[in-house]
This record gives sequence, structure tokens and C-alpha cells, in this order.
Amino acid sequence: MTAKNKSALTEKDGVSQPETTSKSSAEKIKLRRSKQITTDEFVTNILAGNITYLSRAITLVESTNVNHQKQATEIIERCLPHANKSIRIGITGVPGVGKSTFIEAFGKHVTSLGKKVAVLAVDPSSSVNKGSILGDKTRMEELVTDKNAFIRPSPSGTSLGGVAQKTRESIILCEAAGFDTIIIETVGVGQSETAVHSMVDFFLLLKLAGAGDELQGIKRGIIEMADAIVINKADGDNEKNAKIAKVAFTRALHLYPPKESGWLPKVETASALTNDNIDKVFSMIAEYFTTVTTSGYFQQKRNEQNKYWLLETINLQLKNNFFGRDVVKNQLEKEIKNLENGKTTPFNAAKNLLDL
Amino acid sequence: MTAKNKSALTEKDGVSQPETTSKSSAEKIKLRRSKQITTDEFVTNILAGNITYLSRAITLVESTNVNHQKQATEIIERCLPHANKSIRIGITGVPGVGKSTFIEAFGKHVTSLGKKVAVLAVDPSSSVNKGSILGDKTRMEELVTDKNAFIRPSPSGTSLGGVAQKTRESIILCEAAGFDTIIIETVGVGQSETAVHSMVDFFLLLKLAGAGDELQGIKRGIIEMADAIVINKADGDNEKNAKIAKVAFTRALHLYPPKESGWLPKVETASALTNDNIDKVFSMIAEYFTTVTTSGYFQQKRNEQNKYWLLETINLQLKNNFFGRDVVKNQLEKEIKNLENGKTTPFNAAKNLLDL
Repeated sequence: MTAKNKSALTEKDGVSQPETTSKSSAEKIKLRRSKQITTDEFVTNILAGNITYLSRAITLVESTNVNHQKQATEIIERCLPHANKSIRIGITGVPGVGKSTFIEAFGKHVTSLGKKVAVLAVDPSSSVNKGSILGDKTRMEELVTDKNAFIRPSPSGTSLGGVAQKTRESIILCEAAGFDTIIIETVGVGQSETAVHSMVDFFLLLKLAGAGDELQGIKRGIIEMADAIVINKADGDNEKNAKIAKVAFTRALHLYPPKESGWLPKVETASALTNDNIDKVFSMIAEYFTTVTTSGYFQQKRNEQNKYWLLETINLQLKNNFFGRDVVKNQLEKEIKNLENGKTTPFNAAKNLLDL
Repeated sequence: MTAKNKSALTEKDGVSQPETTSKSSAEKIKLRRSKQITTDEFVTNILAGNITYLSRAITLVESTNVNHQKQATEIIERCLPHANKSIRIGITGVPGVGKSTFIEAFGKHVTSLGKKVAVLAVDPSSSVNKGSILGDKTRMEELVTDKNAFIRPSPSGTSLGGVAQKTRESIILCEAAGFDTIIIETVGVGQSETAVHSMVDFFLLLKLAGAGDELQGIKRGIIEMADAIVINKADGDNEKNAKIAKVAFTRALHLYPPKESGWLPKVETASALTNDNIDKVFSMIAEYFTTVTTSGYFQQKRNEQNKYWLLETINLQLKNNFFGRDVVKNQLEKEIKNLENGKTTPFNAAKNLLDL
């Protein structure tokens, strides 16, 4: 299955599926029915860049079935030596800022340079069924038909920790399949930016130029995370405002302390509509990677991220084990009520819960 | 013991202690030797505003002795109904910004208004013996002799969680002893600001005006926490630069999204040397409290902080229990090495550790 066929198979409300079955669809169905795809087959095909197997392996990663998870772990372990060779870019921005169109334009530019781009999403609130940000793939009509592009919606899951873990594992599979540019999209209004920030090398904040309220709706703290701010939709009547916003942000960013990477965050205007400056944004990112690879910061950050995720995974599991118990849940409610009435201290309440 | 005697008893390297013992010193020694101070005595005396008993109770809070901790918990529980009536102000800034002199000038102004001020410190790296930020109390010579002021160095402890917990409990005791203004000082270069931010109502960042590097040395993220930035040492030759910095920061803060409190962070210049604008800073803080008390945000934030500390305490304990085991420590080292060599994923490493 190529990305093109993938698109044709996309379920879209109100659009009936074709009744005739193409050859590749038949292949896919066969693959789905087969219970016997071995780990060997998965690994060989993923390393050969086969998107159908990549997609299917990610489905295993996302599965809650214990056997699926076991096989997913095996596949990931064997893909690991072939991973870690991409650049990982996080892109965030509030709804309406034009993330999909920007990523499409940016992705097309990346593939035009002979590179392979994978777009994954982290959106804990959504699921494939409930309609994730990337669920409706027709929003990236052109990129989806590009054989050097792979687009995958956010894994389903209610906990951010779970979604983030699955995405991190999917990154490894995409890298093993030869994708050298990984884009992680997130909605920019919740807790997910911190999770995304800790799995990417470069963090890009998309903004719109507005009258005074340049940062309206963006969560506090995101600006300090950003390696670049791109003022999107800088076309037509917006162009002037975008340039004013660029000056304001550049000035504001200069007030920040220098980043550990030594990189001074940059501000750029761009238009996904006219394609203006999309190449400039890519050059800027390329410049960043040259800088941090040379300085050794790139590997240092990846090591830190790995350690962070190791500890984070353990902490999450410890918490789930503890707070998942009914007796704890009931007592927690009581202790919170006592706290609100000023009848206990947080530490005493914690002690009572831990004594259970 | 009054604050004055407290100061005289401060241990200072190279300064020999007085050989004659004053009446209050004798009282204190008696109190120290006595093993039989009952919880009743503690509570009665703390509620009466007796600083000797307050200080002694905080020592119990800070003790690692199980019996001391048990009594401390009892005292805190009985003080709780009399607590929560103060305003809690966090003050941070890099070393050299003039925190001590600013807090002294600010504290004197607060007591001149007929209020009672307690100054506590959170500095996980230091201990009373190793020299905490407030350890050398002579740096606040005037405030230390003020009978309406109580100054306490950072509790000793290597973990931030432990130090923060003790400080939060000490706040309750200070409030029960009638201190209506609590200042929490922190060094502004580590992780401690987040902890302090989550135990105060108002967060103030002290800054110096500099040539271009206004934020040099300040940890990223602190600016977004600040309810106010005060540019200190705005006197003499510095005055002009301080005013320029004020304009730059005011402009930068306007680019931030609005705070949940509805409060727009303010920038002020001040001088602890000439006392210029110290009153203005206090008026600004008073204005903040009027705003958030009226809107209900004050109580809402305190409730959230209590819940945060409840969960934080439990998480800390769960982690300590897990990572404290030798078998985990040894395996963790191995897994981190494997991670750095790209031989495992964070999730697989976590699984191996959790399986122990």
C-alpha cells in the first residue's frame, strides 16, 4: 500500500467507499486478516520502507492487547539500531492558526528536497474514532498522496502519558522505515506541549498576527519552549500586521535568558497559501541542527529526553498502581473535602492515604 | 526569646559566643533541655504569638526524629483553624540582586504599617549548618531586631520536596502565631521557584537593570510565573537604566497571555538603599490581594495548591519507596547505560525496572 492508496481508503463521513477492490486494498485486507505476520516480516519490511507494514506495526504499538504489545516491543527493539537518525520537529499552535495547511506546505517542501517526512500527532483528548486533529486526512490532500510522506493521526487514549508513550515508540518505527524528518503536531492548548517538547529536537510555535492579542489563547510557558515562532497566514491584508508582530516577538524573545542549546530563538513570517518563506523556515531549522550537532547539544538533549521518559514512565506506572485502587479513590475524595474545609494539611492527608 | 535574642544567639563563624548568659538565653536553654513541653503548651504559646515556642515548633517540624514529627503533626493540626489568614509572598532573584536588603526594607515597611512579617527561605542546596541564604541573619540587622518580624533560615535537607514540605508546614505555624505577611525567599536559579510558586499567593521577581542582559542567569519560565517584576537598586547611576528596563519589561509582559487570576503583571523600580518605591511595591501587592479576594481566585488558588501538595507528597513518597531499593538503583544504572548506547527504549527500560 502506498500513501496514495491510504488516502483513498480514508473513511470520510458521507462518502461511500468504492465497491470494487483495488489490488493494494486486497493486499491490505489480506494483511489484516492474517494472524501470522512474524516479527521478522515486520522488521524486514519496515526497514525496506514499506508503509503498510509500518502502519500495521504502529497499530500494534497502539493496541491494548497484551500479545500485540509484546510483539510491538520486539519489533521496536529490533528497529532501534536503525532509528535515531531523523530530525524531530514539534509544531504547535491554537486551533485556527493553520497548522494543517502549514504542515502540508512545509512537508511538501521537505519531500521536494528528496527527504522523507512523517507527520504524527499528539492529542490526548481525541482518538481515531472521535476525530483527531489529523483524522480527516483530506485536510492534507497533497501531502497524503506524496509517496515520501507518511501521516498518522493521534493514537487514541485518555491519558497524555499513554498517548505520548505510543507516539515516542512510533517515532522509532518511522525512523527505521527511513523517514528522516519527523513532525509531531499538537494542539497547543493543553498539557501536551510539554510532552511533545520532551520528544522533539526543535519546537516551533505557529502564531497569527492579531491586533494586540498576539498570544491570546496560547498556554503560558510555551513561548519559552519555542525555538522558533512562525507568524502564519502572512499574506494579503495580513502581511503588514505579520511584520509588526515579527518585530514585537523578536524584541520580546531577546529579553529571555539564552537557551541551554546556545540557540537564539528566531521569528519568521510565512504563508502556507502563497508558499512564502516556507523554504526560509526549513533553512532556519537546518541551521539549528547544524549548530546543535556540532556543539554536541543534539546528542546530549536526546540522552536527557530518554532518561526523562524512563523516569516518567516509571512514575506514571507507580501513580496508576496507587491511585487505581478503589480504597484510595474513596479516601482521596474525603481527604480533598477535608482540605477544602481547612480540616487537614496536604501532608497529613497524604499520610492517611499512604497508610492505606 | 524575642527576635533580638535570637539574633544574638546566631552562630557565626569566627565570632565567639558570649560567655555570660542572658535571662532569655537561659530560658531558651531550659526550654531546649526540657523533654516535656506538651502539645497543649506549644499550641497555647504559639497562638499567643510567642516566638520562642514558634521557633521550637518549627524545629520539631524540621526534625527527622519520628517522635518529633508526630508531635509536630499534632501541633500543626491544632494550629490549622487559626492559619490561612495571611498573605503569602514569594520573592526570588539571582544571587547579587539584593534579595536580603530588599526583604529587609520591605519587611520594615510592612511592620511600620502595624503588620507582622515572617520571612522563611527555601533553598534545598543549603542547610542551617552549611550556610543557607538567611543563615547569616546579620544581613537583615534591622529587621531581625523588630519584634514584629520573625526570620527563619531554610530547613536543612537535600531533597527539594522535603524542604518545601517543611516550609509549607512552618507557614501554618507562623500564621497561627499571628504573622499576617509571610515572605518566602528563594534563590531563583534552581527548581525551587516552582515549589515556592505553588505555596504563595503572589510571586515577585527581583531584577537588576543591566546592559542588554536583563534576564541573564534567571531560569526560563520564571518570568511567566511572576506577578510582578521589581527592578532593584534603582538608585544613583543605575536609576536611568532601571527606568529603561522597566519599559522593556512592561512591553514584554504585555505580549504574554493573560493570567488565570485576571491580574496583569506589573513592573516597578525600587531601591532598598534609598527606600524609594518600597511603599509602592507594597501598595501594588495590596491591590493584587483586593482583586483576587473579591474575584474568589484567592481561595480557588489555595485549594488548588493544597490539592497539588497532597498529590505531590504522595508521588514523592511513591518514588522514594521505589527508587530507594538497592536492586532498583543498580538496575537503573545499567538501563541508563543501555539507553545512552541506543540498546533499549525508555519504555522497555522502565518495564525492566518495574518488573523487579
